[in-house]
Amino acid sequence: MSRYDVVVVGAGVFGLATAYYIKKENPKSRIVVLDKFGGPGQGNSAKSAGAFRNIFASETNFLLADSTIDFFAHVQGKLGHDLGLSFHGYLWLLTETGYRNQKESFSLMERRGVSMRTFEKEDLHKRMPDLADFEKGDEEAELMGLEPVERGVQGLKCGSLDVDRLVRFYEAEFKKLGGEVHYNTLVKRLVLKPTRELGLPREPLVWQDAYVAGVETARGEEVYADKVVVAVGAWANTLLNPIGLDAFMRPKKRQIFILKDPKLRNLFRAKSFNKEGVVPFTILPKGGVFFKPEVYEEALWVGCADNIGRAFELEDDPQPELSYYTGNLYYELVRYFPCFKDVQPINMFAGQYALNSIDKIPYVFEEANMIYVGAGSGSGVMKCDALGRIAAALYSGEKEAILYGGQTFKVSNISVKERKIEKETFVI
Amino acid sequence: MSRYDVVVVGAGVFGLATAYYIKKENPKSRIVVLDKFGGPGQGNSAKSAGAFRNIFASETNFLLADSTIDFFAHVQGKLGHDLGLSFHGYLWLLTETGYRNQKESFSLMERRGVSMRTFEKEDLHKRMPDLADFEKGDEEAELMGLEPVERGVQGLKCGSLDVDRLVRFYEAEFKKLGGEVHYNTLVKRLVLKPTRELGLPREPLVWQDAYVAGVETARGEEVYADKVVVAVGAWANTLLNPIGLDAFMRPKKRQIFILKDPKLRNLFRAKSFNKEGVVPFTILPKGGVFFKPEVYEEALWVGCADNIGRAFELEDDPQPELSYYTGNLYYELVRYFPCFKDVQPINMFAGQYALNSIDKIPYVFEEANMIYVGAGSGSGVMKCDALGRIAAALYSGEKEAILYGGQTFKVSNISVKERKIEKETFVI
Repeated sequence: MSRYDVVVVGAGVFGLATAYYIKKENPKSRIVVLDKFGGPGQGNSAKSAGAFRNIFASETNFLLADSTIDFFAHVQGKLGHDLGLSFHGYLWLLTETGYRNQKESFSLMERRGVSMRTFEKEDLHKRMPDLADFEKGDEEAELMGLEPVERGVQGLKCGSLDVDRLVRFYEAEFKKLGGEVHYNTLVKRLVLKPTRELGLPREPLVWQDAYVAGVETARGEEVYADKVVVAVGAWANTLLNPIGLDAFMRPKKRQIFILKDPKLRNLFRAKSFNKEGVVPFTILPKGGVFFKPEVYEEALWVGCADNIGRAFELEDDPQPELSYYTGNLYYELVRYFPCFKDVQPINMFAGQYALNSIDKIPYVFEEANMIYVGAGSGSGVMKCDALGRIAAALYSGEKEAILYGGQTFKVSNISVKERKIEKETFVI
Repeated sequence: MSRYDVVVVGAGVFGLATAYYIKKENPKSRIVVLDKFGGPGQGNSAKSAGAFRNIFASETNFLLADSTIDFFAHVQGKLGHDLGLSFHGYLWLLTETGYRNQKESFSLMERRGVSMRTFEKEDLHKRMPDLADFEKGDEEAELMGLEPVERGVQGLKCGSLDVDRLVRFYEAEFKKLGGEVHYNTLVKRLVLKPTRELGLPREPLVWQDAYVAGVETARGEEVYADKVVVAVGAWANTLLNPIGLDAFMRPKKRQIFILKDPKLRNLFRAKSFNKEGVVPFTILPKGGVFFKPEVYEEALWVGCADNIGRAFELEDDPQPELSYYTGNLYYELVRYFPCFKDVQPINMFAGQYALNSIDKIPYVFEEANMIYVGAGSGSGVMKCDALGRIAAALYSGEKEAILYGGQTFKVSNISVKERKIEKETFVI
């Protein structure tokens, strides 16, 4: 049995960022991060599409992402840690209907001062000659339920980063301060204790005050701590549900297909969207299909944030399915970008979103002495720095966290009990 | 393959009330209710504690329950169907701290015009001589973390009913109008179809518009309908999650222990709380432990709505555990009511709440052509009539439902997307 001030379960982006900020503010505290994998971010952090954006409809998601992106730029630009950042932008391809539906959100973001620009149809085709030009009434497109792209909207403070480098950055900073990380250590359960033990069987009994006193690992070790932080992403319900708590998220499988082919070179090398001269992260009009440039590899990553039809289920090691690309995403891709015709993925991988299906905003709250940081909802990487700071503020009993850049954030806004009510409508 | 206007999955209180009101407003519609059990309400409706109250902190829960209780009274009093109603009241036993915490909620309810009365300590002990009279500082109580009861608050429009008779009432009325009910028919999955089929494998593909077209039973039958209603309580995620939808609830086991003993007769026969001369449904100060009179049996039912420590998990046939009574609830019961000493349950049963762990308010919403009625959160029976009317209004495309008694209710208030934001703090 060992004893710490804080045990953090999970060495993904949330767990490591949280451990780092708690340690930074409490340098004398003994803090340990436990993770079932062999290295940092090997759960779903590493399986992320590795992209970031500050284009969100909700003020909360905007603040979390915007400040985290500023921190990324600071780490790479000022602290000299190469995170593989590229501000290539996000480009939404919008049909007439799609534009109408999102128009209000775009105006809201403009009023917020978010950097973005809109391309009318003709301009867009000039910048992106590979985009198919079909008309309303095109028979095949109509049969597929697809409409022509009428506009593009590009978010500029958006791009890609190397998530592996990001988690290693937080891990290194945490360790530099004296933090411990134990890998290959699966936490099996949270240990619930009564505040006053009576020596009766099955304590805590219903009428006793109970709290999370520590964790038990798969090797049967018990690790006790004054505070337990749970940051295990898609696995959160396996720890919270057995003690009667809800992680307010559902796991949903996500896949990335990597394509590299001379036929795609022209699309990849779109000139006028960013200084790298690459195509932005591009979202197709329907079903959440997207591609993004892997800037240093001259490759395109294709993915999809499908919704209805894709099960909520937890898989320990989700596998990509080639047929999901070739017999599904492919049809829409080729309709809008004929250059994808007959191009096969050279590689693929799968991971899982920890999706908050209610408001698509993450959760940080404390219950029974446990702090939960989760429900990243597919945009956890790009919010990790803000969430780490908020969880650390909660740990210290502060009502407000100070995000990178100095903006304050009310900690309870992303709790359960005093949640600020907003809904994120801008989901990919 | 068969085809209906509406398929309702689940013949519990929600499914039958919904089927009845849809049929009532659409007398020519062909409507079928499917259920895996052999009769109405055999899932968790029958496992309910069979109690009702209009004491809720949230306006929404109050309206749902209050109008449903009025309907119960109407059915028994005017329509002549004996539902086994007894308005014996609910009695909250409050410590100084408990009273302070709920004081604001009680004032709110008084302003709402809810019938209730408060008993000061001395008065309460006169009415309930079996209530132990210990002082602050009592060593055993302090060790257990229990404080003396200082006040009682009784809700008067609260009591018990026979849930079996209630579900049979809705079933009979539905059948009288020509509705069909098929028992022993387990629905295995919801059938998702693209709005325009292309004959490709694995449709609907991500870029196709998809809708729930019907259901498939365990016997492999497909039943198609213009609208599918899912009202399967604790099992809702097994149908919704595979198609990527969330039922916004988690199952939590609940148990009832039945006690009948000469030692309890005096407690049971409390004279001055109601016209039946029985003890009210009584909630102990801590941990959600309660007992209620089974009026016609001279028995007491003991239960507990425990929270932390009780797992969220779905069991197909949850079993009661005697040790949960004897080695857990018993200690608090005996501390406050020594007459329970050495009394053993003569019977017991278990069921499950479908708990909305966020706001403890039920859900009615439509998504992909499926109407979901669920997340009763342990107070589904006492809200079933209102929820049936709201689901029927949603089916008819009405923005407002008319509850029993004439009060209108905005249908979207209990949806996902336009949910009225409230939080129920008055949970048992």
